[in-house]
Formats: sequence, C-alpha cells, structure tokens
Amino acid sequence: MKLNIAVLPGDGIGPEVTAQAVKVLKAIAINFDHVFTFSNALVGASAIEKFNDPLPEATIETCKNADAILFGAIGKTSYDLDPYAKIRPEQGLLRLRKILDLHTNIRPVIAYDDLLIKSSLKKTQIKGTNILIYRELTSGIYFGDKHLSEDNNTASDVCKYTREEIERVAHSAFKAAQSRKRKLTLVDKANVLESSRLWRRVVQELATQYSNVEVNYTYIDNAAMELIINPKQFDVILTENMFGDILSEEASVIVGSIGLLASASIGDNHVMFEPIHGAYTKATNKGIANPIASILSAAMLLEHFGLDDEASLVRDAVEKSLTLHITTPDLNNKYDNITTTKVGDFIEDFINNPDETNLN
Amino acid sequence: MKLNIAVLPGDGIGPEVTAQAVKVLKAIAINFDHVFTFSNALVGASAIEKFNDPLPEATIETCKNADAILFGAIGKTSYDLDPYAKIRPEQGLLRLRKILDLHTNIRPVIAYDDLLIKSSLKKTQIKGTNILIYRELTSGIYFGDKHLSEDNNTASDVCKYTREEIERVAHSAFKAAQSRKRKLTLVDKANVLESSRLWRRVVQELATQYSNVEVNYTYIDNAAMELIINPKQFDVILTENMFGDILSEEASVIVGSIGLLASASIGDNHVMFEPIHGAYTKATNKGIANPIASILSAAMLLEHFGLDDEASLVRDAVEKSLTLHITTPDLNNKYDNITTTKVGDFIEDFINNPDETNLN
Ligand SMILES: CC(C)[C@H](C(=O)O)[C@@H](O)C(=O)O
Ligand SMILES: CC(C)[C@H](C(=O)O)[C@@H](O)C(=O)O
Repeated sequence: MKLNIAVLPGDGIGPEVTAQAVKVLKAIAINFDHVFTFSNALVGASAIEKFNDPLPEATIETCKNADAILFGAIGKTSYDLDPYAKIRPEQGLLRLRKILDLHTNIRPVIAYDDLLIKSSLKKTQIKGTNILIYRELTSGIYFGDKHLSEDNNTASDVCKYTREEIERVAHSAFKAAQSRKRKLTLVDKANVLESSRLWRRVVQELATQYSNVEVNYTYIDNAAMELIINPKQFDVILTENMFGDILSEEASVIVGSIGLLASASIGDNHVMFEPIHGAYTKATNKGIANPIASILSAAMLLEHFGLDDEASLVRDAVEKSLTLHITTPDLNNKYDNITTTKVGDFIEDFINNPDETNLN
Repeated sequence: MKLNIAVLPGDGIGPEVTAQAVKVLKAIAINFDHVFTFSNALVGASAIEKFNDPLPEATIETCKNADAILFGAIGKTSYDLDPYAKIRPEQGLLRLRKILDLHTNIRPVIAYDDLLIKSSLKKTQIKGTNILIYRELTSGIYFGDKHLSEDNNTASDVCKYTREEIERVAHSAFKAAQSRKRKLTLVDKANVLESSRLWRRVVQELATQYSNVEVNYTYIDNAAMELIINPKQFDVILTENMFGDILSEEASVIVGSIGLLASASIGDNHVMFEPIHGAYTKATNKGIANPIASILSAAMLLEHFGLDDEASLVRDAVEKSLTLHITTPDLNNKYDNITTTKVGDFIEDFINNPDETNLN
C-alpha cells in the first residue's frame, strides 16, 4: 500500500515522540512492502515562532494532500501563563480539526495486565478494562462564539450542537458498540444543559436503530466518579467535545500513564492520529517522554487503512516493551536509563524480528 | 443561639438523610442550650407533584426568612430519561441558588484514616488528603442563555462570567488558603475558552493581594487526572460552576463514598448546606442511604455561625461512627444491618454522651 503521511510534530515533546512513531511506521513499511512517504509541517507554538500563525497555509495544504496525518502535541508554558495572548498554539490544533472536519475522535482506554501495578487504582478494579471513548471533536463549546467585552470584564463561550453533528459521531459509536460488548453510555449534563438534552434526544432516537445495543445515560459528574470506581462497567462511551476531553484524560489513571493513550480523529475526507497527551514542555529533550501513545496512534493509523496485521504487530511490540520494562521513567522503576529513543528502537527491532527481540 | 432553619428534604433519599441531620442538630441544641427551630418546605420533583413548580413561592419565602437552609437532594429518574420535560426538579435547586445569590460553594474533600481502605485509590496515595473545593455556584453555563430551535434540531447554552462574579468567590478561596496550606489551584480551560481566560486574568491579578499564597493554574482535563494520581498536591481548588460539579463528584472516590461529601453554599445574605450527592432514587426508603453527607453539612452550618465546639462534636461523632463501622452498606462490609436511621441514632447518642457511646 502507498500512503502519504503528513507529520506534524508540534511543540514540546511532540517532535521526539513523533520521531519514534515515524521510525515504527518505516519499519512496518519495509517489512510489509508498503510505500509510506512522510511530509513534515509546522503547527502550534513552533509555527507561531516562525510564521506568527499556529496553522500556516502550507501546513493545511500538506494535511489536505495527505492520506493521513500524524500529529505530535502542541502547547507552551508561556502561553498557558498569558491569558491575554491572542495568538495561541492550541488554535492550530483546533482549526486543523475544524478545517479537516475531523468530527469523530476515538480514544481507547485499555488496562494492560503488565501495568496494573502502575495504576493509581486498585488492581482488581481495573483488570480487564477496555473502553472506547467517542468524543465529538469539531463542535460544542470549543467552537461556539466567543466573546470578550471591550472593558475586558465579561467573557463568554457558546456551547452549540446541531442534530447532524450529534448523529454522525453517535452512529460511529453505536456501530463500534455492535462489534464489542454492545453497551453504549451517553455522558451529558441533560439535567442542566439544553445542548445535552438535544444529545439525549438524538441518542434515544438512534437507539431504536441499534436495538441490540444496551444504552445507558449518565451525567458527567457521575461519570467522572464511576470511571474510577468501576471502569469495567463501560464499553463505548459517547460524549460531546469538552466532556470527552475531561473524561479521556481522567481515564489515563486506569492505564497507568497518560503517555500511553492514543487517539484517532476521523472525518469524512481526512484522518488524523494523535496521542491524547500534551506538549509537556518541561520534559522536552530530556529523553523521558513516553513515545507509546504516539506509536499506538500510528497503529490506529495502520488499522484505519485495513492493515490489521501490521497494527497487531505494533501492538505486540508495545506490549512486549511493557512486559520487559523497556519503558520510560513514567512507567519504569526497574531500569532507569531507558530513553524515548530506546523504547522506539526496541519496538522497531521487534517489528524487524518479532521472534528474537529481547532486552539488550 | 437562636437559629431558624429552613429544611428542604427534596426527593429520593433526601428526606431520610435530612431527617438524621435534623436529629443531630436537635441534639446539639439541647446539649448546648441553643434554640433551633425548623420549617419544612418542598422542592424538586416532590414540589412539582404538588404544585407543578419545583420551587414554589412558599418555599422561597421560607428560605428567605430562615437564618440557614438545610437542603436534601433533588432529582427523579423519570425526568432524567425525559429530555423533553420542560419543568424539571433541578430547576428548583438552580433557581434557589440564583434567587438567594449563593455564589460560593465550598466542598471539603477529606480522606478519613478509617476509610482509606474503602477508597478505589491506593492508600499511600490518598492518606492525608485534605482539599477544599471552591466552586462558583450562580453563574457560568448553568445560568447562561439557553436556546432550542423551533425545529428542535439545534440547541445551545452560554457560559458567561463577569469579573465581579469571579472576584467574590476567588477572594473567599484565597482567604481560605491563607488559613490552610497557602496553596490555591485555579482549574479552568484557558487554552480554549474565553471565559476561562477571564478567570485566569482575574485570579492572576488577585494573587498579588495574597502574596503568601502559592497559586497554580491547571486545565480541567489535567486536573481530572491529577486529582486521582496525586490528590495531596492540592490545598484549595478554585473553579467555575461546571468544572466544580465534575471535580467534586470525582473527588468522592478519594473519600470512599459520595455519601460522605458535604457542602456549604454561601451568599451575602443567605446560606445553604447540602450533601453533594443526588436523590439516588433507587435507594429511596430502603434504609441504605448514607446520612453522613447531610450530617456533615449540618456541621458546616454550625461552624458557619461560629459554633465551633458544636461542629467539632458532630465531626467527632461521625469519625467515631466510621471507626466503629456504624455505617451504611456503601462503607460497611463488617455489619450488614446498619440503616440510615441507626447511623443517625449513633451520632445523636454520641452527642448526648460523648464519653460512653459504643456499639450497642
Ligand atoms: C490541547 C487541547 C486544545 C486539546 C483539547 O482540549 O482538545 C487536548 O487537551 C486534547 O485532548 O486533544
Ligand atoms: C443536581 C444538579 C443540578 C447539581 C449540580 O449540577 O450543580 C448537583 O450535581 C450538585 O453538584 O449540586
């Protein structure tokens, strides 16, 4: 297969983790006779520095011309601390999601047996957890009208949803549930928000088309609690943009490190794959950033194009690295000199030689 | 002291837990020579049933004339499942908060040593946790304009904040931090929301007036993760309405049961005390509802009026009940017939006779 992949490393640890994912994709290409080409482009703070624009035209072009996008991370502490900044790294990511209409963000949350001990939660509680979060990604309060009064004393954001916006992500979530444990939980705040009530209505209506799926409805506050108390009750979680942001990052505590969570952002014409973690500025270039989330995002990319064996091999390699403690410090208390690159090298070696790879 | 207390038991388990808190307040009145009078009023689904209004005029009057309000819980499953209902139980609570201008909601999150084992989290991680969440309670997306298009296909909610709304709750939070570990964490989503950027600006400005308080800023998605990974890093958390709702319910996993979390809602002219849990309809009248959150809300009421010894005694009684496993099933795997009323009775007995109370 030929794939033209746009690579947007972004800021902070973005470039170093993305480099490992690219390495892994190259190894897959060689071993499975695919032709993957990679085109790099700037986004976020690094694009602002160069072009005063977090999403330069050239980057948009590169993305539009690609079969898939591999995204690193964006954000920078100086912007976080400056609520007056008009141009912000995050705008690059948000505009990209919007322009490419990447409406459906899929975030798997899987408790690996080898990592149960790493989680903040008790082992028995999380063993076997396998959740797929479907987060709406191009609407809601992220993209509604924003306003700041001239005197800087009043600010507002609008959370708006249309039936169509809800339907498309909901259909995908229902279909995913059908191929899994046939359970879908809608998370909203329908006891308070009009937009949430629309979500609940639309999902209630769609549910009749997926009669073999058990549908549950819960409020975001309760979901934030239940996700920790009893994560195994969930199969597919469907939710709006902001709640999905919160729940998916919270869910990383089940897995043991936010450095493990991958995601796919799917639109009708474009697809993007990105770790759910941020730029983690203070870890930049220290070799401590966990590349697994980026590598697993690459696996989701492969799977998206039907390359299931390839995706499985990447996942096997990742699991092997976890079993053998070839992991960055966020997960490792056995060895202390395993860098970002070493984890990538191990996974690359495993792909080249699945039967022989071991700690070396 | 004379106190005229409005009691709004509300729906579901509200009445049974509130009855225990009233019992406890009566015991305090007798033992400390206070005169507490109680006036009951309807709110929520039970008020809708009787008056087709979740907050009847009479209830508002009762509350306005009271020195303090003790609130139970509201909500009912039939409304949760009906996103078309125009009249909803929650409106009673929200309107009450708004009418009485109860802008500052304080939610303590304390890990009791006797309950460490009950938490979903690992003991070492949570031991010693003592967080005070300051949640803005009368603005934000809860109270902004709501809209549903005529064709029912588009819905929206506005999240709006003014500088004054942020300042008043922020001042209280800063002051609380000064009398504690002098750490305040603002939780927002300033990388995406204009309203959050206003929060960040205002808090940055106020911080200069509280130079002995260390201020941190974090995003809600990150906070939802950090609250579980390392709750002990937090002292006072300050946040807007919706994020406070989510974080405080999530925080119940640290404490071991949502049935333990109390809150105070403070306005300039009125004060209300309420458990953070909901109506928990399916537990109604089974004797399994945990009355501690309501009883600890009563303790916050006492403290608010400077009755510190009285509040301490209630808290001692609660801790004793936890130590002796005189607790409802959510916390108990030692005895299985301890009902809501029995817990209330034990705490009442302890107050009447602090030195002699034991399991009987
Ligand atoms: C960086 C930020 C804008 C982004 C979001 O909130 O969507 C991130 O947290 C994510 O979850 O992808
Ligand atoms: C019942 C509901 C409207 C309420 C809220 O969301 O504020 C509750 O969850 C709370 O936290 O007090």
